[in-house]
Formats: sequence, structure tokens, C-alpha cells
Amino acid sequence: MKIALIGGTGDIGSGFALRWAGQHEMIIGSRKAEKARESALEVSRILEGKGKITGTDNATALENGEVAVLCIPYEHLSSVTTDLKGSYSDQILISPVVPMSFKGKLFEFTPPSAGSAAAQARGLIPEKVRIISAFHTICAAALQDLSRALKGDVLVCGDDKEAKELVFGLAKEIRELRPLDAGPLSASGMVESLTPMLLNIARRNRMKDAGIRIIEERRL
Amino acid sequence: MKIALIGGTGDIGSGFALRWAGQHEMIIGSRKAEKARESALEVSRILEGKGKITGTDNATALENGEVAVLCIPYEHLSSVTTDLKGSYSDQILISPVVPMSFKGKLFEFTPPSAGSAAAQARGLIPEKVRIISAFHTICAAALQDLSRALKGDVLVCGDDKEAKELVFGLAKEIRELRPLDAGPLSASGMVESLTPMLLNIARRNRMKDAGIRIIEERRL
Repeated sequence: MKIALIGGTGDIGSGFALRWAGQHEMIIGSRKAEKARESALEVSRILEGKGKITGTDNATALENGEVAVLCIPYEHLSSVTTDLKGSYSDQILISPVVPMSFKGKLFEFTPPSAGSAAAQARGLIPEKVRIISAFHTICAAALQDLSRALKGDVLVCGDDKEAKELVFGLAKEIRELRPLDAGPLSASGMVESLTPMLLNIARRNRMKDAGIRIIEERRL
Repeated sequence: MKIALIGGTGDIGSGFALRWAGQHEMIIGSRKAEKARESALEVSRILEGKGKITGTDNATALENGEVAVLCIPYEHLSSVTTDLKGSYSDQILISPVVPMSFKGKLFEFTPPSAGSAAAQARGLIPEKVRIISAFHTICAAALQDLSRALKGDVLVCGDDKEAKELVFGLAKEIRELRPLDAGPLSASGMVESLTPMLLNIARRNRMKDAGIRIIEERRL
């Protein structure tokens, strides 16, 4: 499959490129194509040339992707989706985007009026694009480190069964990562708010590379 | 310590009574004192007479408690706190209350304008009462079953350091339960919204007695 990483030159983009390049064709996108090409070379170097990874501008990446991941901060969601409006076809768009702020030592969840970044994106992007909300709480440092298995769960929201199953499959390709169905896209706010909560807990309890795991209480 | 369980005749109230009766004097409260007395007898029976557990009306329970736990559904928060307004002194009040609804197979987080049940309670209850938000995601079935250790974390929000530490201590008295600091009371919304999210995940992924655990991603 061809997977575009929109704004994919940062930690989370590199992490996905590293984890999926063995099975998929990865297209790193950036506002500056040159920066994306450098990032693609760096990922290729780490993988010792295994896997197909290219870098290009965001629009070209999106046009060529069957799946696209929005590796952008919430602040760019509106401008990026508007700038790219000519490049959508029938992709599956994955949103790990979280609207949050940091004020007075506290991360706060600051959802838009739509209730979540994913619901807002739904309103900005053509209907034919299927949006799946996922990977909000994945630890970028662990994702980038191929020696690590990931113990934190991926909570997935979306309205299209087929697209959701595809994202489940992509999550399972990352060592030990477990996807869980967290409901329709309208439930995305409850999942997105985990990220600022986790960041607060990590800071206050001196936890490193924090993630979230759903457990079942069992009899001993 | 004397711990009042306001509306404590249900699953979660019985659970706390069972878990804490070894170290504390438990006062189960209910709108109907008779119902609370029956519940106290039942808990005593399970504990084979070990521990001091009494039942009374909510106002008397609150008046006698140094710590009080609001074991009530969100729908009763406003009326219970108003009805009990003459019974507050300088208690530490623990709120595990979660504002949520169930519509079209989906649990939704429905916070009041204050942002959370705990923040709303803060506005309804005298200033001298210290409010701590905690135990929202604890599994009532596991809490009631003394043979079980609890693996789900307790995420604690509050503005008073001493009260927070006391609640940490109470959590630690429950076998294997781990309290984590999730920030000030203003962060309670992010924690309260975990409950409807967990209920959705449990339903959709066929998980039993679900809880949430914060993990650290580690190198293998």
C-alpha cells in the first residue's frame, strides 16, 4: 500500500515511516519538498536501504497515497486541509491530531466546537475521504526505536468499517501494538483528550514515554 | 478515620466499604436510613463481623465523616449536594462522579458548563470542604471481590496537596491499586471522560471489567 505522511518529517512521521517501510511504500510529505527528501534519506539510512521511502511536497504525497496520516499539530489542521483540498481523492485519512494547550504547567484539552479534531477535519475534507481517528497516545520516541515493542494501546474511532479494519491492520504491523475499537468518529473527543491527560500524568509522576493500556481486572 | 459513603448502598459503595473496613470506620449513607443499615449488615456479614460498618441517612453519614465519597450518579449531584448543605464541615470530599449519557449504543461524556462534575461540585459545596476527584474508572465488580487485586490505575485530581495525599493513601490500601497524580481539579474533565470511553471500548471489544493503566514504553 502507498502511505502518505502529511507533515511527516518530525518524530511521529519518522516513526511511522520506520515501522511501515517493510510492508508499504512510504511517501513523506512536507511543506518543503527538500526537507521531506532529506527525511526520507535519513529513514532509508536507518533501515539500511530496505523499504521504499520517498520525500516530496504534501500535495504530491497526498495525491499518491492510498492512506494518508496527518502528522501535523492541531494549529495547522485547518490551513493544511484547505491548502491540500485539490489533492484528495478517495484516501483513507488517519488523524492522530489533538487540540491542546499548555498553560500554567498544565496541558489542557481544547476541542473545537465540532468536539474533536477528527470531527472538525470531517467538515473540512471531501465526503469521499474516509477519516479514522487513531494513534493519539502513541509514544513517538518508542515508535522511532525499532528495538522496542509498543505496550500502549491504539484507540480507534471511525464511521467506516472497512477503513477501520485497515487501520487496525496497520497498527498490528507495529510490534505488539494493539488496536481497540473506541467507537464512531463522534467518540473521538474522548480519545483525543487522553493525550493532554497523559502528558500531565507523565510530568507529575515522573513517568517516561507514557502510554495508555486498557486492562481487564481478573480473579487471581 | 471515619469515611462516609454518600449514596453508598450500591456496587461501588459496598466495594469501598469492603476494602476499607479493615482500617477505617465506614458509614454507609442513603436517602433511606433503613436501606443503608441493611447494606451495612450485608457488608459486615461478608467480612464476618470484622471492621466497623454502620448505616444511616446521608446527612448523618456526612456529618460524621472526616472523608466522604460521593457514590451517586451525576444526575443526583446537584440535589444531593443541595440537600446536604447543612451537613458539611471540613471534610475531604471524594468525587468519582461522571456526567455521561448513553445514546444510540454509545456512551458520551456530557460535562456541565463547569467542565467536569468535580468542578461543578466545587461550586455547590462550601469552600472549606476540600474536593478530590478520583476513582472514576475503578471496576465496581472487582472492587467488591476481595479475592482480586486491582490493576487499573486511580487518576487523582485536586487542588489541596494534603487532601490529595490522603486519597493516595486510601487508594494504596486497596490491593495493588496505584494512584497517580493527574493534576489540579481543573483537569478533572479529562479524567472523568475516561469512563464513557472505557465503557464503549469494553462493549466493542468484548472486554470484561475493563480498567485503564498508564504504562511506560521501555526498551526490550
